Amino acid sequence: MAKQRVVVLDTTLRDGEQTPGLALTPEEKLEIAQALDSLGVDIIEAGSAITSEGERKAIKLISKAGLKAEICSFVRAAKEDVDAARRCDVDSVHLVVPTSDLHIRYKLKKTRAQVVQMALSTLEYAIEHGLKVEFSAEDATRSDQKFLLDLMKQAEERGAHRACLCDTVGILTPERAREFYSRFVRMLKIPVAAHCHNDFGMATANTVSAILGGVREVHATVNGLGERGGNAPLEEVVVSLKHFYGVRTRIKTRKLYSVSKLVERLTGLPIPPVKPLVGDNAFAHEAGIHVDGVLKHPSTYEPISPEEVGQQRKLVFGKHVGTHAIESELKRMGFKPTRKQVLEIFQRVKRLGDQGKTVTDTELRAIIDSVMGRKFKDLVKLEELTVVSGNKITPTSSVRVRFMDREVVESGTGVGPVDAAMNAIRKVVEGISNIRLMEYHVDAISGGTDAVVDVVVKLTDGKRIVTARGISGDIIMASVQAMLNGVNRLLWDRQMRG
Amino acid sequence: MAKQRVVVLDTTLRDGEQTPGLALTPEEKLEIAQALDSLGVDIIEAGSAITSEGERKAIKLISKAGLKAEICSFVRAAKEDVDAARRCDVDSVHLVVPTSDLHIRYKLKKTRAQVVQMALSTLEYAIEHGLKVEFSAEDATRSDQKFLLDLMKQAEERGAHRACLCDTVGILTPERAREFYSRFVRMLKIPVAAHCHNDFGMATANTVSAILGGVREVHATVNGLGERGGNAPLEEVVVSLKHFYGVRTRIKTRKLYSVSKLVERLTGLPIPPVKPLVGDNAFAHEAGIHVDGVLKHPSTYEPISPEEVGQQRKLVFGKHVGTHAIESELKRMGFKPTRKQVLEIFQRVKRLGDQGKTVTDTELRAIIDSVMGRKFKDLVKLEELTVVSGNKITPTSSVRVRFMDREVVESGTGVGPVDAAMNAIRKVVEGISNIRLMEYHVDAISGGTDAVVDVVVKLTDGKRIVTARGISGDIIMASVQAMLNGVNRLLWDRQMRG
Repeated sequence: MAKQRVVVLDTTLRDGEQTPGLALTPEEKLEIAQALDSLGVDIIEAGSAITSEGERKAIKLISKAGLKAEICSFVRAAKEDVDAARRCDVDSVHLVVPTSDLHIRYKLKKTRAQVVQMALSTLEYAIEHGLKVEFSAEDATRSDQKFLLDLMKQAEERGAHRACLCDTVGILTPERAREFYSRFVRMLKIPVAAHCHNDFGMATANTVSAILGGVREVHATVNGLGERGGNAPLEEVVVSLKHFYGVRTRIKTRKLYSVSKLVERLTGLPIPPVKPLVGDNAFAHEAGIHVDGVLKHPSTYEPISPEEVGQQRKLVFGKHVGTHAIESELKRMGFKPTRKQVLEIFQRVKRLGDQGKTVTDTELRAIIDSVMGRKFKDLVKLEELTVVSGNKITPTSSVRVRFMDREVVESGTGVGPVDAAMNAIRKVVEGISNIRLMEYHVDAISGGTDAVVDVVVKLTDGKRIVTARGISGDIIMASVQAMLNGVNRLLWDRQMRG
Repeated sequence: MAKQRVVVLDTTLRDGEQTPGLALTPEEKLEIAQALDSLGVDIIEAGSAITSEGERKAIKLISKAGLKAEICSFVRAAKEDVDAARRCDVDSVHLVVPTSDLHIRYKLKKTRAQVVQMALSTLEYAIEHGLKVEFSAEDATRSDQKFLLDLMKQAEERGAHRACLCDTVGILTPERAREFYSRFVRMLKIPVAAHCHNDFGMATANTVSAILGGVREVHATVNGLGERGGNAPLEEVVVSLKHFYGVRTRIKTRKLYSVSKLVERLTGLPIPPVKPLVGDNAFAHEAGIHVDGVLKHPSTYEPISPEEVGQQRKLVFGKHVGTHAIESELKRMGFKPTRKQVLEIFQRVKRLGDQGKTVTDTELRAIIDSVMGRKFKDLVKLEELTVVSGNKITPTSSVRVRFMDREVVESGTGVGPVDAAMNAIRKVVEGISNIRLMEYHVDAISGGTDAVVDVVVKLTDGKRIVTARGISGDIIMASVQAMLNGVNRLLWDRQMRG
């Protein structure tokens, strides 16, 4: 097992960007490259210079950004590809050559001999021009192993700096990965890298197994982006290596979550909640017994501490809730509840859960208020809301609310009817307090145009942050309700604190 | 290696439903259970009967639905849990007992002896009452192995039908999984099951390794739902077993995609596009060279055929597009393009891609029309759209469009302003053709209330299906635009065909 430090090549900006439906602007690529550099990635594969003008602009921006990481361009076995990469001032090229007969015959329509000739002459050309070369076999795991080894040995003799073997369609299993990679590690003198795809969900395990087989470099992408099932997720590979095998990388794991979120935002590909380490649920606990365990001793249901990857623990209340979790939440809020009160809150949360709902922050506290006899009152009440919109009208909204004994009327315009309504509400709220909308989120809407819309807002009054939800078949009403629910909670809590 | 058929226990409705933020109604649970049954699942863990009234209703519904699968309830080591399960008429119970000192001491605040006593007496109680029992150790992988084995042997002696060992916080690695499970397989006579969590992204590989170690039953969830990083995804485990090891299950893999989609719809937890086998991208191809390869020979970039899991191949056009893909699409449309035309279309698609956009169906064909000199004309043109909405008004919309030389005016109401506007547009469209809206989808909206909204609609005229997109800061205008883009494409193509 490699106890020395493993090199991480991040290919979020190349193989990751090949995710169908994904495209990044040069400026977005630069922002991600800077984040990867501060995360501690050793090599950034910034793109494929031959692809397009925009791609070359992106790679050039990254090469000139003064990053610590080695900046690399993907190239095919063609001099024009190398020339394009050179013009982007990269440090190295990832020279990728298909080696399976399937790829050679059907994709390239060439013979093995032709491919060898193209590959080696491109390699020599790149080296002559002062580039570091990672010489890489595409579809290596479905290639004739003798042919593949011969080619890699010839590449080594001609000065390739590193070798890489790609499991292009993700057909390795952990035990085969170890065996496959260790053979090349034994037969070659230059460092060997593993590049694993996730078609069967085994990319992380295969990459880790390759390291156990002696590989010194791993290819990975943030959030496991990539074609089809994606590439090996950087966060899973790095944290597994560290925890299970004590294998070090230069990655600062505490930055994993923020880099993951940046990539999510710029690619527009949401991280699913049920995703190891970086998902919203990775350190969230709902089931009653589990929350109970976690409250008593976090490691009962957490293999590592959330902070280690820059995450935070989260408790969620729903139909699986236990009395211990309710009690602990009440204590956190400063109550000394009786057993009966705890049980009643517990029942009510269960009932909401049975209706197929989870209980948000604001909803749980509404139940608690009611049971604990703390009379919650909507301080701001919506009296009237009107919106006009269309293709030839500036979207405009008027709103009338009752706040304490006053009536407040405001109006607003916006890019659309939701924006107009929310701007009107915002003016009302700013008139009566310093509450500010921090985040606005709508879940994806699927089905029909009358589907129920779920809006969640995050608000702050400068001291506290509260999340609140609005649900309606009408996106405007759902948005306005979420906003008012949150505002009322903040105003009420402030009043309670005196 | 187990060459005999492996038993699949699906726990989507129990461990899967413990996903924080997820709750299903009894009717939804029944619908999923029926789908799991026809998928070929051997054992359905339908829930935990002690949890709530709604949960018991769900389990009862499932028990009485006449399914082929064994219906099972989760129970803790407590007679009240068994009684609740009995009242739901289940075939079996999954009796789960924490065995690590961490869980025994901090969660249960008991001693090992107390836990053994509780566990075995509950086991006997369940057996006396005619239930099949799967006796399961929670946090087995962090337990004292001698204590654990003793307990399992005692359970076996007292009549447990199956044994299960849970990797509760996902800390196994493939080689450790094989070693860990094979020990219990050797030492016990009853069948052993593996229950693996995915905290480090290794659940699939670990589950498969457990099978190689002799385990005869796997626990899994559809889409890998479950707490934190989720459970082993059923689809990945089953397809990996079949493809890599020839290990059979009763799962009809061609139904995997539709069951996955059903669970997505009912849980509201979207399947990320980059997800092995069932994701939207699992068989989608964008990068130019890859599409080229796939067109020549699908297996160049597909480890299995999409149909095998009920999916379909998809080609996506973007900045990585190659000329071969463009040419093939043109031929499919019946054109005989010149080299110059192919190159121009290619350049225009690249330019769109460089702006950070992918190219939809409709957009690609607009480019093709323009380059091939096929004059596309919007047959339906939006002249005026107005929407009024609010909390005290029925959302109402009027729309005026020009169709050929006619002017058509319609109005509509709806649950919200989007629904009202789309209903008005629908009336217009139905008045001039038989086009029907099949699907309406809005991507999740994050950021501010003025964020750009991306609406995609799927329309059909009975013969063809077309997808079209509308993008705007105004959700109404984005929806209407998507609808009209699709309508115009269908009408135009129909006119072209004569």
